[in-house]
Amino acid sequence: MTQEPGATPTRIELLECNLDDMTGEALGYALEQLLEAGALDAWFTPIVMKKSRPAVLLSTLCRIEDGDRLIDLLLRETSTLGVRRRLVERVIADRETLQVETPWGAVRCKAKLMDDVAISIKPEHDDCARIAREQGISLEQVVNRARSLAEQAIATRDELVD
Amino acid sequence: MTQEPGATPTRIELLECNLDDMTGEALGYALEQLLEAGALDAWFTPIVMKKSRPAVLLSTLCRIEDGDRLIDLLLRETSTLGVRRRLVERVIADRETLQVETPWGAVRCKAKLMDDVAISIKPEHDDCARIAREQGISLEQVVNRARSLAEQAIATRDELVD
Amino acid sequence: MTQEPGATPTRIELLECNLDDMTGEALGYALEQLLEAGALDAWFTPIVMKKSRPAVLLSTLCRIEDGDRLIDLLLRETSTLGVRRRLVERVIADRETLQVETPWGAVRCKAKLMDDVAISIKPEHDDCARIAREQGISLEQVVNRARSLAEQAIATRDELVD
Amino acid sequence: MTQEPGATPTRIELLECNLDDMTGEALGYALEQLLEAGALDAWFTPIVMKKSRPAVLLSTLCRIEDGDRLIDLLLRETSTLGVRRRLVERVIADRETLQVETPWGAVRCKAKLMDDVAISIKPEHDDCARIAREQGISLEQVVNRARSLAEQAIATRDELVD
Amino acid sequence: MTQEPGATPTRIELLECNLDDMTGEALGYALEQLLEAGALDAWFTPIVMKKSRPAVLLSTLCRIEDGDRLIDLLLRETSTLGVRRRLVERVIADRETLQVETPWGAVRCKAKLMDDVAISIKPEHDDCARIAREQGISLEQVVNRARSLAEQAIATRDELVD
Amino acid sequence: MTQEPGATPTRIELLECNLDDMTGEALGYALEQLLEAGALDAWFTPIVMKKSRPAVLLSTLCRIEDGDRLIDLLLRETSTLGVRRRLVERVIADRETLQVETPWGAVRCKAKLMDDVAISIKPEHDDCARIAREQGISLEQVVNRARSLAEQAIATRDELVD
Repeated sequence: MTQEPGATPTRIELLECNLDDMTGEALGYALEQLLEAGALDAWFTPIVMKKSRPAVLLSTLCRIEDGDRLIDLLLRETSTLGVRRRLVERVIADRETLQVETPWGAVRCKAKLMDDVAISIKPEHDDCARIAREQGISLEQVVNRARSLAEQAIATRDELVD
Repeated sequence: MTQEPGATPTRIELLECNLDDMTGEALGYALEQLLEAGALDAWFTPIVMKKSRPAVLLSTLCRIEDGDRLIDLLLRETSTLGVRRRLVERVIADRETLQVETPWGAVRCKAKLMDDVAISIKPEHDDCARIAREQGISLEQVVNRARSLAEQAIATRDELVD
Repeated sequence: MTQEPGATPTRIELLECNLDDMTGEALGYALEQLLEAGALDAWFTPIVMKKSRPAVLLSTLCRIEDGDRLIDLLLRETSTLGVRRRLVERVIADRETLQVETPWGAVRCKAKLMDDVAISIKPEHDDCARIAREQGISLEQVVNRARSLAEQAIATRDELVD
Repeated sequence: MTQEPGATPTRIELLECNLDDMTGEALGYALEQLLEAGALDAWFTPIVMKKSRPAVLLSTLCRIEDGDRLIDLLLRETSTLGVRRRLVERVIADRETLQVETPWGAVRCKAKLMDDVAISIKPEHDDCARIAREQGISLEQVVNRARSLAEQAIATRDELVD
Repeated sequence: MTQEPGATPTRIELLECNLDDMTGEALGYALEQLLEAGALDAWFTPIVMKKSRPAVLLSTLCRIEDGDRLIDLLLRETSTLGVRRRLVERVIADRETLQVETPWGAVRCKAKLMDDVAISIKPEHDDCARIAREQGISLEQVVNRARSLAEQAIATRDELVD
Repeated sequence: MTQEPGATPTRIELLECNLDDMTGEALGYALEQLLEAGALDAWFTPIVMKKSRPAVLLSTLCRIEDGDRLIDLLLRETSTLGVRRRLVERVIADRETLQVETPWGAVRCKAKLMDDVAISIKPEHDDCARIAREQGISLEQVVNRARSLAEQAIATRDELVD
């Protein structure tokens, strides 16, 4: 098990622009471009603009050193003429990664730690989805099994420590 | 006061199409076109399609005799390749229109009737908005005054009847 | 454990109306009224109407014998002048209810059955929420524990059957 | 009538997190928890994330002295691994509370004041909803009557002052 | 150029279910499953359910012969206990596919025909996105060039016909 | 052709308020009021508040010198009791305006410049919509023709420069 304190920056940048003259197809493509270019996260919020125009607000979180580069990408890949930017403070939970062996293959799990105690466990979606697809079983079944195994692993370890 | 039973058809048509390759600007324009062409109502529902595409479902209500013409308009003015259509049954409340004189001008009001009793009164938005704009007062003030006057007019009339 | 085939009607009614002249407060109240009056379900869909008006589509599912009564309620409790209605066919999964004893109290669980096999288990939200609140623990912890116990109960029973 | 200048803080904190791995049931529960724990307000914004995931942005407004405590609650009660926080400046309207006696019971009303003049009046939703429910009348009827009475009360008082 | 009249069925099935107890991650996965299993289209509509639960309506369009199979998939891959189904009539525009050679590679285009006249041209998003990505140019540039070339090709052909 | 560097301020103000006690009609009217009063932009975001209330977040961008005046307007024209405000930094693309002569009339186009190169061209929606309406042709046809003409004009000019 690997603890990763401080792996995630607590001070990042948020970029935003309103888009009412792009198609949904082009918006989906722009989102992919942002994530491939290193955005920490990116998402759309549906909004309503003047003249009954359905539009979206595109939000992008990125490392401060990536801000200028991603603004350049936004100006090139979207129809926006201006990108709003601001610094964002985040409070980050400590987390550790552990791996469990399900009957169908290995799944990484992320445990959220508060005061060094694991308060919740989240199997990695990508691992679970790959297994569900390969095995022809439901995603939910894989997720629940992986979480259950990870809970046992952590409970056992904590007993050993005590 | 004018009662208008049956003014609104109880059997109409609903047209729908999903649009992920139009811009918000073009969508707002298409909505205007539909309403000018005689649609009873038209609206957008924000939806999420494959590949993270924000899109809209465009819905149009129209008289049955206008269905073919509005489908033609949808195929010409939007990017859709197919329009879904179906008949819709509606239950319609009786209503009557009355006009009240506010200190700033006349406002038409619509009373909703259940079992011949006015259960709610709605001043026409367009009348109220025009007055608010002309007089430089808040819309809410005009709406509340008009409704209050209409409630008194109906109460007085009902007493006379009794 | 109690199996409940056919408990849920497969032919129900869907009532719909668009609302652009009610406040959010009044809408939330109307939703409660519908559910208290016996609607099987009711929900809002945010939509965009002419003149840049954010509005909602209110949808209500109900038993066919409740349709007229709930339309009357909609006409009285909302601002709509017309309610659209149509029959809806549903395909329903068989389900059974079982109860498990968590360390903090009993939780009912619903198992979804396909070909007589439980393919997923869902602890009742209300039971879990009540326990989480009373015990000051997280909802997720209660849900996961209850599901895990129900899975074991079903696995044991299935072994006995075999 | 009680005037309450300065009752509402003009400098508060806004907490935000994106949630794509919680269910709607658990989200509704988390909202209640936040409000019970003293949040000034909390709401969801539907968003679209990568891989066509419908998700929500959860926003919470709170007093500055409650920020750390509510961030802790968010980390425990939601699936988020990080909470964004920032200070928010607000411009607050003066308001006064008055109570009116409707035929069905007392309703508190909030008057919004600009330059010491009441520019709008809002009956308390909870009072109106309770009365509507108890009396079996429509919410709208109670709200309109209460507002009308409050308008008269304020008009009378203002005349006395003049 | 290939004309494809009648390639798209005009009578299809619409499947719907409300989901308030799945995560956004699992929803995105279910959407992929539906499309891989042969759904003609599938999308989410954000909705608001009781107890302030943000949820989604999942809609799926499919060929009539695929209806039972996809309902089975929905019952297995989502948390729903019931799927609503209904037949849908569609009016379909004729269309033809042509291919144009841009400076960066071939792009298929779809022309929408009304009364045998091409009224709009839409370059295939997937072709354009692949080229934009490979060449490091903007999607918009590829789309505009392909559409312009296709318009010229159709204009030239139409002149020849005349 | 006119280049307009610096025409758009890079430091502006964002005003926000949550509204759950206004109707959609009144919201659409408030949006118009804001834009007429000089807001740079204004839009609605659908949100979900406590007690299952569908509501909106109203956002307004304005010049810093207009902030106090527009906050006053928001307090008068909407039901809000408090407006959140903050400064916003924007990165603005250079742009130039050129005019092209389509077969149906003149259309202004806006070219977005990066490093003095026009990377995209956007015909003014209002010009295109007016022509489409007057001529009875589709908006898309006007937009595509205008953009194509503007691209040629810029290509020719750039050759001359070289």
